[in-house]
Amino acid sequence: MEKVQFWGETLRLVVELAATAAFALAGIMEGARKRLDAVGVCVVGFLAAFGGGTLRDLLLDQRPFFWVSHVNVLWGVLALCVLAMLFLRGHHFHLTERAIQWPDALGLGLFAATGVHQALLLELPAVVAVLMGLVTGVFGGVLRDVVCNQIPTAFHDHRPYALCAFAGGWVYVGLWEMAVPGWIALAASVTVTAGLRGLALWRNLQLPAWKP
Amino acid sequence: MEKVQFWGETLRLVVELAATAAFALAGIMEGARKRLDAVGVCVVGFLAAFGGGTLRDLLLDQRPFFWVSHVNVLWGVLALCVLAMLFLRGHHFHLTERAIQWPDALGLGLFAATGVHQALLLELPAVVAVLMGLVTGVFGGVLRDVVCNQIPTAFHDHRPYALCAFAGGWVYVGLWEMAVPGWIALAASVTVTAGLRGLALWRNLQLPAWKP
Amino acid sequence: MEKVQFWGETLRLVVELAATAAFALAGIMEGARKRLDAVGVCVVGFLAAFGGGTLRDLLLDQRPFFWVSHVNVLWGVLALCVLAMLFLRGHHFHLTERAIQWPDALGLGLFAATGVHQALLLELPAVVAVLMGLVTGVFGGVLRDVVCNQIPTAFHDHRPYALCAFAGGWVYVGLWEMAVPGWIALAASVTVTAGLRGLALWRNLQLPAWKP
Repeated sequence: MEKVQFWGETLRLVVELAATAAFALAGIMEGARKRLDAVGVCVVGFLAAFGGGTLRDLLLDQRPFFWVSHVNVLWGVLALCVLAMLFLRGHHFHLTERAIQWPDALGLGLFAATGVHQALLLELPAVVAVLMGLVTGVFGGVLRDVVCNQIPTAFHDHRPYALCAFAGGWVYVGLWEMAVPGWIALAASVTVTAGLRGLALWRNLQLPAWKP
Repeated sequence: MEKVQFWGETLRLVVELAATAAFALAGIMEGARKRLDAVGVCVVGFLAAFGGGTLRDLLLDQRPFFWVSHVNVLWGVLALCVLAMLFLRGHHFHLTERAIQWPDALGLGLFAATGVHQALLLELPAVVAVLMGLVTGVFGGVLRDVVCNQIPTAFHDHRPYALCAFAGGWVYVGLWEMAVPGWIALAASVTVTAGLRGLALWRNLQLPAWKP
Repeated sequence: MEKVQFWGETLRLVVELAATAAFALAGIMEGARKRLDAVGVCVVGFLAAFGGGTLRDLLLDQRPFFWVSHVNVLWGVLALCVLAMLFLRGHHFHLTERAIQWPDALGLGLFAATGVHQALLLELPAVVAVLMGLVTGVFGGVLRDVVCNQIPTAFHDHRPYALCAFAGGWVYVGLWEMAVPGWIALAASVTVTAGLRGLALWRNLQLPAWKP
């Protein structure tokens, strides 16, 4: 049993780091597309990687932030920014974007579930917890796009993204209320979010659009 | 006397709900104009409805947020978003905008007075209290416009909006310092703000513009 | 010795006020360029002047904000906005921008060092303290540009700005750890930041750009 938990913890850490890198890379590429300078690229990378969790902690009045208690992740993202500026070129973007789709989907699931979990620990209502999950998973990308002066992709590209995290968030809330062990709830929630996201990408599903 | 208070409370609740709906509708229509997807329209609706009060509570370090202690309002705004997506069409926008002008003006007054009140309760200086009133009344619309990637209407359309709330905020502060009963101060402040806003719309008053 | 401290305090206050005015003026001119109305120009001036410090205090969970405990500065910036609207014209902008370069550079150094100091007092890790310094010095301008609906100049103009504050921040951290007296650390940090900024402007240094 302990062995399972150890591997579970390790798996979670691997997913978390891969997802943080994926979020940061998405920010770095967006910054590069907008012709930001070196400082701008780094800031947008940081915002994309840490913005969602930081905004959630601000709203929930929780300290310390993830990147304050895990300073190494800050250095890691900074190193990623420098490496990307040295080696990543425009013609790699398409391939990189395909490569980060899965870590990004898993990260969306993991960060959303983490956000829901934190809010439930504070005994907030279920719907607020799900909202906090959405903020955690989605608002890093929103801040990235706001600073890059464009309408957030998550609100504009008509592909399900936040909606997948919404579904996964409710799964987590449901299993939590049924007192299912934490790691099962986490695994189920991440599977639902990432699975729905994968399905949406695979079948090219579209969100309902406004009929003018 | 109790009866007066009961009707006062009811009136306040009605104005509050109507104003929240008006703010949300303004956000929904802005999102629709920018061709956001269903998720984006909802998020912008929520930001417009709750953004100002949430930002004020963040600045004042107050918890819980309004939408955490009144979860039903969250569901209400969500329902409004869904209904709007189903039934509101582009050719209704002009009429809807005219219809929400009054609830919007009343809401500006009510939210601004509430913000001033909260800050005064914390014994903050008068000018800070008035600023908090402005944040409450105006920054929901500002966040809405920032996410929709445009210069905030409140800062750009040269029609008095924040300025009305500024005046109403000082009325509230003045009456508070004279120890006038709360509901009189509230009614006077809302009347001044909404009255000035109505006057500005009716006479098409313009803010002084920068002379280049 | 007491006399030195008195003049040090006075000098610091003069720099602080000049820098706040410089930041506010940069915001006012940006708002004027974007044809904001009188309210918008004031809000952007306030955001530019106080946004960075306020964001830092939000992140560090510190209250009261600078502008709450020093209400007079609020009135001062408001007066500056009114005076600018009355007397500043488009053909003064170029000269004004040159005139505020030095107070702006000194302010960047002073605000960054203040941010680092506050974070170190809370026993946060060094890299987090330097980040808080950057937020204090740079994010007022970022908020200004976000509200004016453009990509933040600090991330886009390829001239070292945040990078100077980054260097100055590490100087402060280093001297703090060596237990050097506070005013020496402050003076050294401000000198490094403002000196690098001045050098960058003088020699027209460019940040490395992304190679597409």
